[in-house]
Amino acid sequence: MRPSGRDLSEMRPISIETGITKHAEGSCMIRIGDTHVLCTASIETRVPPFIKGSGLGWVTAEYGMLPRSTSSRMRREAATGRQGGRTVEIQRLIGRALRAGVDRSALGERQITIDCDVIQADGGTRCAAITGGWVALRLAVNRLMAAGEILSDPLLDPVAAVSCGIYAGQPVLDLDYPEDSEAGVDGNFIMTGSGRLIEVQMSAEGTLFSRDQMDQMLDLATKGVGELAAAQQAAVQ
Amino acid sequence: MRPSGRDLSEMRPISIETGITKHAEGSCMIRIGDTHVLCTASIETRVPPFIKGSGLGWVTAEYGMLPRSTSSRMRREAATGRQGGRTVEIQRLIGRALRAGVDRSALGERQITIDCDVIQADGGTRCAAITGGWVALRLAVNRLMAAGEILSDPLLDPVAAVSCGIYAGQPVLDLDYPEDSEAGVDGNFIMTGSGRLIEVQMSAEGTLFSRDQMDQMLDLATKGVGELAAAQQAAVQ
Amino acid sequence: MRPSGRDLSEMRPISIETGITKHAEGSCMIRIGDTHVLCTASIETRVPPFIKGSGLGWVTAEYGMLPRSTSSRMRREAATGRQGGRTVEIQRLIGRALRAGVDRSALGERQITIDCDVIQADGGTRCAAITGGWVALRLAVNRLMAAGEILSDPLLDPVAAVSCGIYAGQPVLDLDYPEDSEAGVDGNFIMTGSGRLIEVQMSAEGTLFSRDQMDQMLDLATKGVGELAAAQQAAVQ
Amino acid sequence: MRPSGRDLSEMRPISIETGITKHAEGSCMIRIGDTHVLCTASIETRVPPFIKGSGLGWVTAEYGMLPRSTSSRMRREAATGRQGGRTVEIQRLIGRALRAGVDRSALGERQITIDCDVIQADGGTRCAAITGGWVALRLAVNRLMAAGEILSDPLLDPVAAVSCGIYAGQPVLDLDYPEDSEAGVDGNFIMTGSGRLIEVQMSAEGTLFSRDQMDQMLDLATKGVGELAAAQQAAVQ
Amino acid sequence: MRPSGRDLSEMRPISIETGITKHAEGSCMIRIGDTHVLCTASIETRVPPFIKGSGLGWVTAEYGMLPRSTSSRMRREAATGRQGGRTVEIQRLIGRALRAGVDRSALGERQITIDCDVIQADGGTRCAAITGGWVALRLAVNRLMAAGEILSDPLLDPVAAVSCGIYAGQPVLDLDYPEDSEAGVDGNFIMTGSGRLIEVQMSAEGTLFSRDQMDQMLDLATKGVGELAAAQQAAVQ
Amino acid sequence: MRPSGRDLSEMRPISIETGITKHAEGSCMIRIGDTHVLCTASIETRVPPFIKGSGLGWVTAEYGMLPRSTSSRMRREAATGRQGGRTVEIQRLIGRALRAGVDRSALGERQITIDCDVIQADGGTRCAAITGGWVALRLAVNRLMAAGEILSDPLLDPVAAVSCGIYAGQPVLDLDYPEDSEAGVDGNFIMTGSGRLIEVQMSAEGTLFSRDQMDQMLDLATKGVGELAAAQQAAVQ
Repeated sequence: MRPSGRDLSEMRPISIETGITKHAEGSCMIRIGDTHVLCTASIETRVPPFIKGSGLGWVTAEYGMLPRSTSSRMRREAATGRQGGRTVEIQRLIGRALRAGVDRSALGERQITIDCDVIQADGGTRCAAITGGWVALRLAVNRLMAAGEILSDPLLDPVAAVSCGIYAGQPVLDLDYPEDSEAGVDGNFIMTGSGRLIEVQMSAEGTLFSRDQMDQMLDLATKGVGELAAAQQAAVQ
Repeated sequence: MRPSGRDLSEMRPISIETGITKHAEGSCMIRIGDTHVLCTASIETRVPPFIKGSGLGWVTAEYGMLPRSTSSRMRREAATGRQGGRTVEIQRLIGRALRAGVDRSALGERQITIDCDVIQADGGTRCAAITGGWVALRLAVNRLMAAGEILSDPLLDPVAAVSCGIYAGQPVLDLDYPEDSEAGVDGNFIMTGSGRLIEVQMSAEGTLFSRDQMDQMLDLATKGVGELAAAQQAAVQ
Repeated sequence: MRPSGRDLSEMRPISIETGITKHAEGSCMIRIGDTHVLCTASIETRVPPFIKGSGLGWVTAEYGMLPRSTSSRMRREAATGRQGGRTVEIQRLIGRALRAGVDRSALGERQITIDCDVIQADGGTRCAAITGGWVALRLAVNRLMAAGEILSDPLLDPVAAVSCGIYAGQPVLDLDYPEDSEAGVDGNFIMTGSGRLIEVQMSAEGTLFSRDQMDQMLDLATKGVGELAAAQQAAVQ
Repeated sequence: MRPSGRDLSEMRPISIETGITKHAEGSCMIRIGDTHVLCTASIETRVPPFIKGSGLGWVTAEYGMLPRSTSSRMRREAATGRQGGRTVEIQRLIGRALRAGVDRSALGERQITIDCDVIQADGGTRCAAITGGWVALRLAVNRLMAAGEILSDPLLDPVAAVSCGIYAGQPVLDLDYPEDSEAGVDGNFIMTGSGRLIEVQMSAEGTLFSRDQMDQMLDLATKGVGELAAAQQAAVQ
Repeated sequence: MRPSGRDLSEMRPISIETGITKHAEGSCMIRIGDTHVLCTASIETRVPPFIKGSGLGWVTAEYGMLPRSTSSRMRREAATGRQGGRTVEIQRLIGRALRAGVDRSALGERQITIDCDVIQADGGTRCAAITGGWVALRLAVNRLMAAGEILSDPLLDPVAAVSCGIYAGQPVLDLDYPEDSEAGVDGNFIMTGSGRLIEVQMSAEGTLFSRDQMDQMLDLATKGVGELAAAQQAAVQ
Repeated sequence: MRPSGRDLSEMRPISIETGITKHAEGSCMIRIGDTHVLCTASIETRVPPFIKGSGLGWVTAEYGMLPRSTSSRMRREAATGRQGGRTVEIQRLIGRALRAGVDRSALGERQITIDCDVIQADGGTRCAAITGGWVALRLAVNRLMAAGEILSDPLLDPVAAVSCGIYAGQPVLDLDYPEDSEAGVDGNFIMTGSGRLIEVQMSAEGTLFSRDQMDQMLDLATKGVGELAAAQQAAVQ
């Protein structure tokens, strides 16, 4: 029934390749099916003004799509002179999600910026960005710990995200683009590896939804995040 | 236990005053406690390029805060030269929410723009904007129907929104600013008057949350939206 | 002869309601007929760089129109990414006018920003903004004096403004929009309550004018400002 | 008493040199003492959307200062990414003033853009721009008439402008920069060669003013505009 | 003598991997040592206004660097709101260079946009972008020819580019970042595979240069472009 | 054979008039035939952040064209809100070229900004800007030396620039606009008065070129720069 032939609760193949760029303190290419996102973590000693002197750290994110990551070419945001509303919304989400998994006091007064650049898009880029972004963050923090700059680990539980939706009347896990563009309800679920909730966003796109459907999507998401967290752990070992 | 002395499941006083400006096709001032938002609906015959010729209508929204709607003055977005990320995120949410309650085919090929300008802010401005925005939309559509320009009603079920959160460890309904700034979890719930879900956004802000807590917040939200929908109906009669 | 049926030297009804928003140090809604402007005063301790250390204060103003304050919807300036030429010109005028009535040395090294947001426009918004802006300023200064932060009153004489023009060949006082859009000459007159001149702007819009006509407009303006100053005094008591 | 040693009612030397650039349909360099402004007129067949099809023409103006036209270097507006408020205000004034002297129906459906670029500034640049701008406009219209594209002359009466102010307590004509920066009252007077008024702007800058002083300034301005109009006529012959 | 231990006339290892993204009509990842650039070609049927109706095609390019392609993180140009001067200069160069190798009449009235995004930078990114950009262009044109949309091949001779410079007093081929940042003279040479010149840019950066040195750099560049053209041919077969 | 009737190796008439504006520390109007560029030098004590405390000086340049310097009016860059790619590229070139002739250590920690504003364009504006910019720079440095603020001369050798190209199959010197718009190859050559090379840019515009042609253009350029350097020396005496 799904265009890809997957089962309703079946994720696309997950691959996380680390060490993609030599300059970044942490980096990976995450591939969820045909969605490929390059994630890098950059450590800086300066922090935003509102936490200066607080002893707390900060994690923030930026998101972009290469112009031809999509089936028809998009205008380059640097050329249009502004980041679109969707970009702003997504990068705020990524930053908020990753911060929820960080003990900012253990991180200390430094900032880590996670850049998520979509090389190829096929649905679910924001979820891939969060999942891959956490891997880049983990690698950068490992480096700080190895160098003795951080003493207690600020990352207690991995953070991962997956989309679910109502497609052709059925709840499905991990929507690809053909499903996403037809789905009546679309949701993004961000959780820790141990199943605690960080952020839930469900949105009707043509079809209103009930609490029952919401519960079914949450069940699927819990399964998907479990698989993503396992892939994250394998990648950072 | 709440700073305002309200019960955990108690809304702030709701007031919706219509006919605020003589120019707009629909308008109201919605007051949820000390949060005051002016909502206007403007009907235009042009539609966005992507639906031109489709016979379908469009509803979109813009959101702004007056510089001194907040306790310390914010910079005016027109002067900074760009709408901030929060503004963009909120106005996209308002537009999406209201569109979910519109039969765009019955609306016909016209655009209605809902402007939501916050006169005084005390938490929950985006929810007030959606709830008041629907009233402005309803009034504008009534005018089109009275003029015979629309034959069947495109607004079948009212749309309203309310926030819930975990404050001091307890799920509470309709957060005001003192609660919002301390809440460990913050959620916005957009529903129809008959209780169908349009959009759910829950976000950990310091405390992760469980599915149990999520369910409790949904129960509170359902109660709150019921009261808001009753106020909407009273206002538009 | 006037569309509204007013006498040539008759102002529209004047209403000034103070205490409109709980956050601002001073605020009012001024209504000159169907022109409604919300004015707030915000006190800040920082001053512009060019007077830092001088012991002098500063008063500045910003002006905006809500998108649907006009008969057809205007684009939101925050969305277009810049304030238009008319906006810039008006807010510079408001700031200049109000500063002319301030003893900046008595004010001391602090800045007061007057925000003037047009809720409903029907001609004469800049004059209403100046007149209402002075009320907001007066209330904010009262608060500083009550708190003992200012010892001698920096506001010696109220500042008010009114428009006059040549409509259908006759000098008239306080143009509303139907008159304004047809007037051959349009003028704005800013004076103190005691009749001293602060700024005079007269502009031919289709018809050149003579010194005689200029004198007649000044006579009308003097009458109008007298009535506005009385309303200001009543409002701030 | 004046820094330059001029009499109270004495203009600076006036020079208008035409034919400055080979490309423009009309051009001149106007020099009022040490204030030098290059004015060009460009004829275009397109008109702004709001008059398309009306048979009426349009005259508009743009104003700029070269970065080192002033005693210390100003930032280039093209580099800062926006025209400042003062620039916008001045170019709107120039356009309005010149249009007041044009029979737009005789001009026919075409646009003439007057560019006024300040090469060297020493006070009174906006007045010099209007006076020189009219010369460029006159030359461009002459060319249209010579080519038979316009049959009846749309420029009936020259337009010129001069500043007056209260300097050291005395009304003076044609302020240079040292006077302008100290003046208590500053005014710009735009008139036709035959003495009809187009625009009057008087503004208190530190000292309020009376109607008597306003009258004295108008007398001075009438004298100055007469001399400017004579120089314009000499230049365009 | 070179930091990398290379001979003066030795290129870094060259690798060109095609078919990198599934959406683009042509794509490759070009790696010149540690400089990695992703190049995509996008075919569009619209052309710039200035060639509409001419029957000629257009090739244009855009260039960007991922924020962490460099040793310390750069600000994202989409976030700063403008492309920097270096970016603009480089993308104009890439477009000009590739157009020089295209028979625009054989291409027909369509536009091909080459996007060059630097994944990892180590000197010579603009040359890598041109060399890889030609491969993406070649693949996109192959697809048009295979589909019968183009009948005669518009790409007669490959286009490639290489940098040379004076490093430690000696002319060297293909500067990497450590050399580039120390070079006294820096040049970029764009040629066809058959050795005709398209663009030569040599620039003193601390040391002036003579015609002899210029000749030596040209000899090196000719050798380098030969090797790059061979790699291009191998990649597109 | 050339539209102007000049010999292949003949420059247009060169004129350099100094002391054009009273405010700038150095200024000239350079006229190369009908190309007229106003160049000013402004000395500032602040330097860019990256050399603060280094003891080294900085020379930078900005370039602009007056809107009607060209045969049809261009949009004013200040009004469009950004400097175009061509402007950015040219002003970077001017700055780089002039810096190559400066001993930045002898200049000391100060910045000199060269503003080059094109009053009338007829081809070769960037070369005229460099040649005239050096004269403005020389005059400003002379003033610093006369005042004893600089002890040893930081300008050892004049810097000048000229264009050459292949026009109608023949190498020609100093292209004017009619030649430039038809040339198959276009080059800019920046040299010192003693013939050392600073920057060479040759670009195919329709016709590829050989090393022989490149050599012929260099010969022409050397002749042209010699004449320009003589004019510079005459102007600054």
